[in-house]
Amino acid sequence: MKDKGTLVVISGFSGAGKGTVSKALVEKFGYSLSVSATTRQPREGEQDGREYYFKSEDDFLRLIDYNGFIEYAQYVDHYYGTPRKFVEDELEAGHVVILEIEVQGAMKIKEQYPDAILLFITAPSIEVLKNRLIGRGTETAEVVEKRMRRAAEEAESIEQYEFIVSNEEGKLEDCMNTIHSIIESESCRITKRQEFVASLREGLEEYKENIDKDK
Amino acid sequence: MKDKGTLVVISGFSGAGKGTVSKALVEKFGYSLSVSATTRQPREGEQDGREYYFKSEDDFLRLIDYNGFIEYAQYVDHYYGTPRKFVEDELEAGHVVILEIEVQGAMKIKEQYPDAILLFITAPSIEVLKNRLIGRGTETAEVVEKRMRRAAEEAESIEQYEFIVSNEEGKLEDCMNTIHSIIESESCRITKRQEFVASLREGLEEYKENIDKDK
Repeated sequence: MKDKGTLVVISGFSGAGKGTVSKALVEKFGYSLSVSATTRQPREGEQDGREYYFKSEDDFLRLIDYNGFIEYAQYVDHYYGTPRKFVEDELEAGHVVILEIEVQGAMKIKEQYPDAILLFITAPSIEVLKNRLIGRGTETAEVVEKRMRRAAEEAESIEQYEFIVSNEEGKLEDCMNTIHSIIESESCRITKRQEFVASLREGLEEYKENIDKDK
Repeated sequence: MKDKGTLVVISGFSGAGKGTVSKALVEKFGYSLSVSATTRQPREGEQDGREYYFKSEDDFLRLIDYNGFIEYAQYVDHYYGTPRKFVEDELEAGHVVILEIEVQGAMKIKEQYPDAILLFITAPSIEVLKNRLIGRGTETAEVVEKRMRRAAEEAESIEQYEFIVSNEEGKLEDCMNTIHSIIESESCRITKRQEFVASLREGLEEYKENIDKDK
């Protein structure tokens, strides 16, 4: 029997490059990327259905009522959520689905999908993280500070994750391959192969019965 | 800081090809293979230090007294054990060390080395397993039956392992790559990266202190 798909939750510090990593994984390994819904306004260059599904608050609240989100949260004045249908269809089809979400969302996912793989992406050091945020050149000192403080908060929850992967400068390929290895190897985890184990046991029982019958 | 090595315990049904897989892993990835000690007589073609270290019972018992084995057991009239020094030296040097041992030994290893990775190698089905044992042509029907009954016993303990890997006909390379992926990805497991996580937290704390001091 074909195994069902694999849900992979990717979180990480701002500046760790989780967006780049996720997109690259989709391109290289054909994984599916879940697109979140939000009630905030699209920013310049953002496209409905690519960065986010942009929804009115009414629509969003209606979707909540219809159990349309696996998880959702309100940040400042806006809602953000993970549409349920896409994830469930993709898992049913046996695909690897990537969710790029925050810590709290990740915990809600794990409750509902205990087999989900929780990955935390980080820069190799805090020095590198800070320099990347500064180096973007688009962020004010204030924003950099806010993100670093946020990182300190997020760091409190790292132990909730199963794997930590370092995304080093110029080594995106290594980072992707490591994540791919994690996903591949999790499919051999004994807790995820119970049907297979059961089939082996049945085969052995059958063998013994046949042998004993012949005697 | 360089992480210490990784201990990989490989068990599996007789006929699953765990010996072939272990040797191939050593050749392809440069892993170290632990050689067991035994008090049984060498069989034709066996070489001291390659298949086993052949010891007199006196020597073996003395080694037990000197805590020279990580685990040992007595089967029928003979002792079998895993020499401690080789494993500890290799781990200290940061290598991947493969132990090819039985279920009971595997459990003893896990108690002493909680980070050890426990792999169970199987044929893709019991039908294939049986045909392989028969196909060797060297085994009598009686021996095949004994091994299959043994397999049924071993199957009881599969859940004690962390990963199950299927070694399919003509796909040794796939099997090896899967095991390599498991070993690689386990090194990203959060429980094994606590020093790294601590260093990230420290870096963030330092950053916050510096920022607050400048204000």
